[in-house]
Amino acid sequence: MFKQIDLNCDMGESFGAYTIGSDEKIMEYITSANIACGGHAGDPNVMNKTVKLAKKKNVAVGAHPGFPDIGGFGRRMIDFTPEEIYHVIAHQIGGLQAFCKVHRVTMQHVKPHGALYNKASKNRGVAKAIAQAVFDLNPKLVLFGLAGGELLDAGRKIGLRVASEVFADRTYQPDGTLTPRREENALIKNVNDAVAQVKRMVSDGVVEAMNGDFVKIKADTVCIHGDGMHAVTFAKQMREELEKAQISIASLNK
Amino acid sequence: MFKQIDLNCDMGESFGAYTIGSDEKIMEYITSANIACGGHAGDPNVMNKTVKLAKKKNVAVGAHPGFPDIGGFGRRMIDFTPEEIYHVIAHQIGGLQAFCKVHRVTMQHVKPHGALYNKASKNRGVAKAIAQAVFDLNPKLVLFGLAGGELLDAGRKIGLRVASEVFADRTYQPDGTLTPRREENALIKNVNDAVAQVKRMVSDGVVEAMNGDFVKIKADTVCIHGDGMHAVTFAKQMREELEKAQISIASLNK
Amino acid sequence: MFKQIDLNCDMGESFGAYTIGSDEKIMEYITSANIACGGHAGDPNVMNKTVKLAKKKNVAVGAHPGFPDIGGFGRRMIDFTPEEIYHVIAHQIGGLQAFCKVHRVTMQHVKPHGALYNKASKNRGVAKAIAQAVFDLNPKLVLFGLAGGELLDAGRKIGLRVASEVFADRTYQPDGTLTPRREENALIKNVNDAVAQVKRMVSDGVVEAMNGDFVKIKADTVCIHGDGMHAVTFAKQMREELEKAQISIASLNK
Amino acid sequence: MFKQIDLNCDMGESFGAYTIGSDEKIMEYITSANIACGGHAGDPNVMNKTVKLAKKKNVAVGAHPGFPDIGGFGRRMIDFTPEEIYHVIAHQIGGLQAFCKVHRVTMQHVKPHGALYNKASKNRGVAKAIAQAVFDLNPKLVLFGLAGGELLDAGRKIGLRVASEVFADRTYQPDGTLTPRREENALIKNVNDAVAQVKRMVSDGVVEAMNGDFVKIKADTVCIHGDGMHAVTFAKQMREELEKAQISIASLNK
Repeated sequence: MFKQIDLNCDMGESFGAYTIGSDEKIMEYITSANIACGGHAGDPNVMNKTVKLAKKKNVAVGAHPGFPDIGGFGRRMIDFTPEEIYHVIAHQIGGLQAFCKVHRVTMQHVKPHGALYNKASKNRGVAKAIAQAVFDLNPKLVLFGLAGGELLDAGRKIGLRVASEVFADRTYQPDGTLTPRREENALIKNVNDAVAQVKRMVSDGVVEAMNGDFVKIKADTVCIHGDGMHAVTFAKQMREELEKAQISIASLNK
Repeated sequence: MFKQIDLNCDMGESFGAYTIGSDEKIMEYITSANIACGGHAGDPNVMNKTVKLAKKKNVAVGAHPGFPDIGGFGRRMIDFTPEEIYHVIAHQIGGLQAFCKVHRVTMQHVKPHGALYNKASKNRGVAKAIAQAVFDLNPKLVLFGLAGGELLDAGRKIGLRVASEVFADRTYQPDGTLTPRREENALIKNVNDAVAQVKRMVSDGVVEAMNGDFVKIKADTVCIHGDGMHAVTFAKQMREELEKAQISIASLNK
Repeated sequence: MFKQIDLNCDMGESFGAYTIGSDEKIMEYITSANIACGGHAGDPNVMNKTVKLAKKKNVAVGAHPGFPDIGGFGRRMIDFTPEEIYHVIAHQIGGLQAFCKVHRVTMQHVKPHGALYNKASKNRGVAKAIAQAVFDLNPKLVLFGLAGGELLDAGRKIGLRVASEVFADRTYQPDGTLTPRREENALIKNVNDAVAQVKRMVSDGVVEAMNGDFVKIKADTVCIHGDGMHAVTFAKQMREELEKAQISIASLNK
Repeated sequence: MFKQIDLNCDMGESFGAYTIGSDEKIMEYITSANIACGGHAGDPNVMNKTVKLAKKKNVAVGAHPGFPDIGGFGRRMIDFTPEEIYHVIAHQIGGLQAFCKVHRVTMQHVKPHGALYNKASKNRGVAKAIAQAVFDLNPKLVLFGLAGGELLDAGRKIGLRVASEVFADRTYQPDGTLTPRREENALIKNVNDAVAQVKRMVSDGVVEAMNGDFVKIKADTVCIHGDGMHAVTFAKQMREELEKAQISIASLNK
């Protein structure tokens, strides 16, 4: 049976003189780039450069909108109403769309960032606002969200194609949610274990939870982290191992 | 002979809790709204609201990009390279375009703001960068620029339709440039004089310079100021007087 | 028996080209100015001007720190840790202290703004962080906080002089808390009613809650709103009425 | 004859999730830390951490104010009036002073950053505004400026102690100015050559200009760069070589 998975990574999160991530190198191994839109990270120069780079590497381009809070890198929850979130999402997708136009790239997807992603996974009002903004801007965009979360649900209901996102290096709870970062064992540090988790998700549609239960999970796309010392090695090994396991690595639109 | 003029005004320059301008009232009298794009002013909530308002009042929508400097309201020259300006312009137009999409409005034009407008009037490199960004995003956009300035020239050369902008309440030098604001007599404070100046520009294609010379000037669009105590009265009177003089008031695409 | 009250108002909340409030006029009627520190509002030019104005009008100067979020005017809750809040408070007080130094003014007090004020009223960790920052910077500063809230408690415990703040135009609940703004009847719109509420707070140490109960409340300082159409009239009338009632109007250090 | 030099480096230029420089390591080799004040870089968390680190390493603390422009890292010239620059400088020094107070550190000096430093070296009005702000805040502060530039002159005239700054890795013109960065040979890439240049500046009070002339130069403090691959090695070697040459390495107040 044919197995396929998309590998996505947050890209273009540098800002002015500040560099984060190894975009050039990671771009070799992924199939979808979530490009920061100047909200939580990125600026017009970085957005332009990153769309160009993704095109060159034949990686699908997506918008990665977040709370407008460079100082907090979009990781701090900020109390926006759903209506304000709708505007923020629309604005940031539009900003990135300009560089897609300039480089003649078709935007493939939208994946919210950080605190906004987390909020959208749990809060129906926020999820609906985001899905509505994406749909209103372009109903062909694929909406990325946490496997099992509210955002996917909101996206499906509105008529968007959605991609269920799983994490290679995070452990899961018996209810299918991620183990919170503040807890011990939240992270899978061994690459082999991470690869094994992904293989099982793709091949068998399950993940082994912390308590040993096998929990059903849908894996359309795997989040690869682009920052940190071993990010490039990790991405490379993940891709190679999945290919060895006869899993096809391709973006959503392929 | 048929005479026509567009009345434009900077709109959507409020920001969060801060309000500037009397957008609702001024929108009654103008034909083109230059909507701030979150660079020098505006935010996603304000952009959304202003595009919606313009649509309701049947006023043509344009992007009003400026240096990304809310604290300086885009009035301070900042040393950006032409390439960086290209990115800034593309980014800001894209951000506004999102709200045009949402409200099903066709963006008509682009008019740079403040220090960027002034720089583009005199500096060929900056003018070309702006014109190129506008063209690359959408070759049907009309580029607004100072009558006789470099921006119009750059726009024409690249193949854009351009609109030569004149000022009702500014005096002109014998070489056709505006009297710098810091000089005495830079401003025309009497509404009747301002109206008379516009009528002559539209009807005869000339402006009376400070020294009494009549200087050739092309007037496609007149800038109306939206802020200040008498802005609404001024806009209203300008419109009424021009209509009385059989000058048709219409946006560029009409 | 001698009765005294301080009248405080948020000042210096303009920003660049954006003006909020009628600082010059309101400054005539108040005794303590809470000056924005560039976090939720204000900028170095405005801070300088406002400290100078307060000195001229013989109004006591206080720092008015808020979440660093000009776009949200400090009204949005942002998820900062208490340690981060300590740093933010220290930084903003320090910034304003510079202008006190320049104009040879002794800073009298600190009053947090908006979402930070609300959070500090209810959350002990945040209250302690703020009190600690104020104390570490200058133990002679008076800490303003909501009557009955956690901030006053944290201030007292650390050894700061505190001022219990009451509101003239807000209604109170039987437990002594403010009626939330989203509820009907949260605001007292009639100036006479507002004045009567303040007089009773100062003279009798009670406030009549929404259900008619008289609740004990300590009133050291009354918050006067500086924005809105009738702010100046309101401030003037409040001052005059209190003076007529033989209540002395003076800042905390007088 | 006794020879002494101060080694200074820009510190605390990280911002939120963004890290720049190897502050912990560089701090081992320098005697004066120029700490960013949240204008061109830094934030309250970083400022706090960096003051604490400098204290621990026994390095003198200075303020490093710049144009308020995190996105441009203070390297873009922005058109501020001298009066506005005075306010910006006062505000930023005040903000850092708060963390000096918290950690019981005496601020030693002020060194403007980037475009502001360059402007202050050449423009008398800007130089005077900066010197005045520093003096008004604390007349005991040492003002760092480019050897031979306007800022030192303005500082001296107002009564401040000044420190003439030289660069180890930049070449000089026959008139004593730095070779502009855009020119070939602007940088000295070989560490031995850089060390030799500094030794000569300290020992003989001269620098060999690009044309071979020996030009008089006063060296009170040498700027060490904290960013880039070899920054730490460079700092270490510079310090060791100067010590070998019997040059005492000490901050200005030692």
